[in-house]
Amino acid sequence: MTTESAPASHRIVIVGAGFGGLETVYRLAGAPVSITLVDRRNHHLFQPLLYQVATAALATSEIAWPIRYLLRGRPDVTTLLATVTGVDTTARRVLIDGGDTLPYDTLVVATGARHAYFGHDEWEPFAPGLKTLEDATTLRRRILIAFEDAERESDLARRAALLTFVIIGAGPTGVELAGTIAELAHDTLPPDFRNIDTRKARVVLIEAGPRVLAGFADELSTYALRSLEDLGVEVAFGQPVTECTADGVVFGGRKLEAKTIIWAAGVRASPAAEWLGAPADRAGRVSVLPDLTVPGHPDVFAIGDTVTIAGPGGSPVPGIAPAAKQQGRYVAQTIRARLRGEKNVPFVYRHAGNLAQIGKRSAVIDFGRIKLRGALAWWIWGVAHIYFLIGLRNRLAVAISWLWIYTRQQRGARLITQGRAKVSNYWP
Amino acid sequence: MTTESAPASHRIVIVGAGFGGLETVYRLAGAPVSITLVDRRNHHLFQPLLYQVATAALATSEIAWPIRYLLRGRPDVTTLLATVTGVDTTARRVLIDGGDTLPYDTLVVATGARHAYFGHDEWEPFAPGLKTLEDATTLRRRILIAFEDAERESDLARRAALLTFVIIGAGPTGVELAGTIAELAHDTLPPDFRNIDTRKARVVLIEAGPRVLAGFADELSTYALRSLEDLGVEVAFGQPVTECTADGVVFGGRKLEAKTIIWAAGVRASPAAEWLGAPADRAGRVSVLPDLTVPGHPDVFAIGDTVTIAGPGGSPVPGIAPAAKQQGRYVAQTIRARLRGEKNVPFVYRHAGNLAQIGKRSAVIDFGRIKLRGALAWWIWGVAHIYFLIGLRNRLAVAISWLWIYTRQQRGARLITQGRAKVSNYWP
Repeated sequence: MTTESAPASHRIVIVGAGFGGLETVYRLAGAPVSITLVDRRNHHLFQPLLYQVATAALATSEIAWPIRYLLRGRPDVTTLLATVTGVDTTARRVLIDGGDTLPYDTLVVATGARHAYFGHDEWEPFAPGLKTLEDATTLRRRILIAFEDAERESDLARRAALLTFVIIGAGPTGVELAGTIAELAHDTLPPDFRNIDTRKARVVLIEAGPRVLAGFADELSTYALRSLEDLGVEVAFGQPVTECTADGVVFGGRKLEAKTIIWAAGVRASPAAEWLGAPADRAGRVSVLPDLTVPGHPDVFAIGDTVTIAGPGGSPVPGIAPAAKQQGRYVAQTIRARLRGEKNVPFVYRHAGNLAQIGKRSAVIDFGRIKLRGALAWWIWGVAHIYFLIGLRNRLAVAISWLWIYTRQQRGARLITQGRAKVSNYWP
Repeated sequence: MTTESAPASHRIVIVGAGFGGLETVYRLAGAPVSITLVDRRNHHLFQPLLYQVATAALATSEIAWPIRYLLRGRPDVTTLLATVTGVDTTARRVLIDGGDTLPYDTLVVATGARHAYFGHDEWEPFAPGLKTLEDATTLRRRILIAFEDAERESDLARRAALLTFVIIGAGPTGVELAGTIAELAHDTLPPDFRNIDTRKARVVLIEAGPRVLAGFADELSTYALRSLEDLGVEVAFGQPVTECTADGVVFGGRKLEAKTIIWAAGVRASPAAEWLGAPADRAGRVSVLPDLTVPGHPDVFAIGDTVTIAGPGGSPVPGIAPAAKQQGRYVAQTIRARLRGEKNVPFVYRHAGNLAQIGKRSAVIDFGRIKLRGALAWWIWGVAHIYFLIGLRNRLAVAISWLWIYTRQQRGARLITQGRAKVSNYWP
């Protein structure tokens, strides 16, 4: 970077503008610091609704905001679109693509996680995951093209494979995807096709463990399972997937022919641990100290999905947006305390609850003592998600999109873009 | 195709679901025919607002609709996502990708046009055009990344090249792009950047001819030029571009360093003339007969941007949406007449007028005798475009997007997707 961006005050570099990184920036407003926020994307993404982009319910721009626009009123923050390639903790510099470096007094690493295949990276082309906007538009394209190809296919076996959608992993993302794809096939699409009956599409949710939504209370898992089955989703338990190919999956020793497979079964942290030479768990998550600093580097914080830390009761803090935000807030408080020459208490995670939507009329919410399910839970889920979106415009846009889906079965973003059609020219 | 889709009634195949093809389908409602509508995209695109997607004002889904959704209430219409590879006019079959064929009694070719480089196809990577949604998101990415890279660039010459935007061709698309990019740079982006002043960005509109908006009356061209200059656009006349590279353009014998170049200077028709062995003009447009059939093939109609035909006064019918729609309506009428054993009168084009927006407060409208410009013209332009959008939802969405831009300088779709960041995995 140029010297003109090297400030006189305490320099903070924050890597990653997800929930954790952005919250850190917000909570440092007015502090005597100068912040550089680096992300390899130009947008902050509201990941909890990403599955709705993948299923054509929402448009990409409804759940993503330009990072620098969010921080336009903060002259103390410089936003950079750049890819971090490493950290020189001795010289206190972050290395970015193009050979530039960003000097820091305090570093906050909030670089998130990515889906992982447990040693089967070769499955990725056949079973893409869902973490970025591009993942979502890729899945949307695959799902919509499967129906298009089925409409053209006269071979019944091939048509059946095109109309079989497999989701691997029955956590919140897997459950939400399965429910929404079932609704897409059974409610939205039937009047649009002539040669196929999209209501006959199979949606198969495969879970290696014994129940769906393992992070929720037992009774809510049971309810979620019944709701999924009401939507026509087939759920298979206790059968880990042993193979993914272009033609389908193998699980429980049998082969299921399916042209669309979605991976929702596991994540791996960003390479933050490698950059920092820090201890990490099997999923690559940095084991941070109780003040969220990296062992041996009191000037480096790491937060969010890229770290692991024990929560109350000893179980790990879950990789969800509220946890990342709490950590971001804590880091901002700690930096402020240090600048005043004070110490901060260790980080304490407060679990607010778990939410998952199951189709457009049902949800489950686990607040611990209070457990909700069904239509009321769905309304709370919907209002909470609209509330957490940023800005009136996007709240309005998402509310309108949902209104249209719920009243008219009309999904506004059924676009197949990129991919099959040649991009650079319409005709060769 | 399978035999199950081969109907007993008069079979019509329509290739292309743009304004012309879709209008033909709409106007054939209730006729004793069975229609197959083929498009290589799954969506109908409202091209007149495509430049607003390219400049981050509108989201892709606000100006595109799934074709089969638009025709869900028409059991007589089968929609196919397929690429036409040729036409066997002897056997009366359309050939599509995958080796399938579509038999027809009447064929309607409405396959549009694509931007063209007048024998300089090698310019395309450096000066992309604007005809498809992918073109628009590609341009959007390039424009937004230019500002991002400028923010990181310390070399002043390179920074200036990053902040120079060249638009080649001053027809409606070029004028609209130039005005909107100038507003983006001068109104929307300034508060978001720290190292650069986006108001210093140069927007250069290069026109080989003697004036902007050559299809409009002289006085409106003059007004449009003044409006563009008020927005800070530099306009260069009478200087054809002789070179496009990754670093800039050469025109009028001088080199202009620019990292973003947009091509809005010419089109070439689809390969319909080749498929049909039909006479065509230099731009590849089929020379159709007065009843819009292809010479020698009375059962084949061709309409829209892929044909050329003389309008009233002998000048060619312009390549605009209303012309394509009139032709689609005419073809539907002719098919209905033929099925009744009657003849139809030759096609007569009625020119309603030309419209172009110049930034967010001004437009020019040439109705022939009535000429409008300025704020009133802008309001008519805006209302007309919202009216011609399909469906309440998109009208609402576009109106909200424009409201936000006009009251808050906030563009809702400033997303950089695909391209630079790796798509398949966040980390190598």
